[in-house]
Amino acid sequence: MTFAATVLTLYPDMFPGPLGISLAGRGLAEGKWSIETVQIRDFARDKHRTVDDTPAGGGAGMVLKADVLAAAIDHARSLSPEAPVIAMTPRGRPVSQARVRELAAGPGVTILCGRFEGFDERIFEGRNVEQVSVGDIVLSGGEPAALMLLDACIRLLPGVMGAASSGTEESFEDGLLEYPHYTRPTDWEGRTIPEVLRSGDHAKIAAWRKQKAEDDTRLRRPDLWERHRGARDQSASGARHKDEDLGS
Amino acid sequence: MTFAATVLTLYPDMFPGPLGISLAGRGLAEGKWSIETVQIRDFARDKHRTVDDTPAGGGAGMVLKADVLAAAIDHARSLSPEAPVIAMTPRGRPVSQARVRELAAGPGVTILCGRFEGFDERIFEGRNVEQVSVGDIVLSGGEPAALMLLDACIRLLPGVMGAASSGTEESFEDGLLEYPHYTRPTDWEGRTIPEVLRSGDHAKIAAWRKQKAEDDTRLRRPDLWERHRGARDQSASGARHKDEDLGS
Repeated sequence: MTFAATVLTLYPDMFPGPLGISLAGRGLAEGKWSIETVQIRDFARDKHRTVDDTPAGGGAGMVLKADVLAAAIDHARSLSPEAPVIAMTPRGRPVSQARVRELAAGPGVTILCGRFEGFDERIFEGRNVEQVSVGDIVLSGGEPAALMLLDACIRLLPGVMGAASSGTEESFEDGLLEYPHYTRPTDWEGRTIPEVLRSGDHAKIAAWRKQKAEDDTRLRRPDLWERHRGARDQSASGARHKDEDLGS
Repeated sequence: MTFAATVLTLYPDMFPGPLGISLAGRGLAEGKWSIETVQIRDFARDKHRTVDDTPAGGGAGMVLKADVLAAAIDHARSLSPEAPVIAMTPRGRPVSQARVRELAAGPGVTILCGRFEGFDERIFEGRNVEQVSVGDIVLSGGEPAALMLLDACIRLLPGVMGAASSGTEESFEDGLLEYPHYTRPTDWEGRTIPEVLRSGDHAKIAAWRKQKAEDDTRLRRPDLWERHRGARDQSASGARHKDEDLGS
C-alpha cells in the first residue's frame, strides 16, 4: 500500500521540495509514498479567487475563510477518504513520535497549511480537522511544518530507509533522548571517546548508554523526564505482582 | 545588513527549497537575506570522501565524524564569523520564539544538518555548537528542521513580511497561544462567529480574546500555562510596590 500524502496549500510549488531528494525522494520515485497538492485558491467562489478576509472583531492580518477551506478539504477527502486531516498551527497539540508512528502505519495524511493570520476557527470542528503543532515558533505558513511532519512519517515507511535505518534505539522511542554517539578517531584534538565504549563489554556499554540517556533527558528536558518517570512508575506498580523489585 | 544563512549539509540541493518561494523567496531575491550551502562531504580527507563511521561501542547506523564536521564548521565560520553555529538534533534544547527573535536580530545563523545516526558528540564542545531541537519527532536528517528554523527567522526580518505581517499579537509572543480567529461568512453551515466579535465594543473584544488565549493555553498546553503563570507571578511580585492589585 502506498502512503498517500495530500497537501492543501496556497504554494503547491513548495512540494515535494526537500522530500524529492535523498532517501525520501528515492521512495517517492519507487512509489513507496505519493504526494498530491491541492491549491486552496482553486476553491474560492468569486472571480477574484479570494481565500481570506479581515478578522471578525478587528486586528491585523487576514484569516482563511471557512467556506473556501471546507471546499478544499472536501475535495481532498474525495481523493483520500481514509486519511486523517491535520492542520499545522501553533495553537495545535504538539506532535509526538507516537502520533508519527500511527500516521506512518496508516493510509496517509492530508495536511492543511495556513498562511496569513490563520484559519477560521470553525473549520476544525466543522470538518473534523486535527490541530497539530511542530514546535513553539511562528512560521510564515504551515508548509515548512508540513514538510517536517511528512519527513518524519516517510522515513518510517517500509523500505524507505533500508540499511540506513537505525532500528528502535532513537530519541523519543522510549520517552527519553537518545544517548550520545562517538566514532573514530579515538582521540580528536585531545578529546577522547569514553573508555567504556572501547571496552568491548556489551553489558557495560548498554548500562552506560542507558544512564547517559536518562541523565541527558533529566538535565536537558525535565518535561520529558517527568513524563517518563510517571509512565515508568505506573507500569511498575502494574507489574508489581510479578516483580517486587521493579520501578522506583 | 543582510541576514546570512549558511547551511552545512550532505544535501545542498534541498536549499533554498520552499524558502525560494513566496515572501521568503521575494526577500531572498531582494537581498534581504542570503543563503549559502556548504557540502560537508567536501571536507572529507580520504579519496572515498568518507563523512561517517560506525558507532564506538557498536550499534546500528553511522555517526558523522568529528574531524570532518570540524573542518566544515571552520570553513563556514570563515564565511560568516559572527553567526552562531546551531546543530539541528532531537537531543537539543527546544527552540523558542525568543531565540528565533534573537537570531533574526543578529548577523545570521549557520546551521549544521545531520544525517544517519547523528553527530560525534565531541563536535559540540569542540566547536562551540548550540544543539537545538524543533519538536519531539525524529527526522531523516536536520534539513527539514533547518528550513523551519530559517523560515521562522526570515519572516521577522525587516521588509520581508511587509503588510502581511500581523504585528505582535501572535502565538508564543507573550508565552500564550494566540486567540482563535473568525471571518465572514457570519453564519457558516449553522456555525456563527461569536457575538462579542460582532459587537464593535473594542474593550469587550480585547477582554474576550485575552480570556480565550488564556483558556486555550491552559487546556491545550498546560506546560506553557505553568511557565506563563510562573513568569506572571514573578513580574507581579517585582511590581507590587507600584501596584498592589497586580498579579494573582
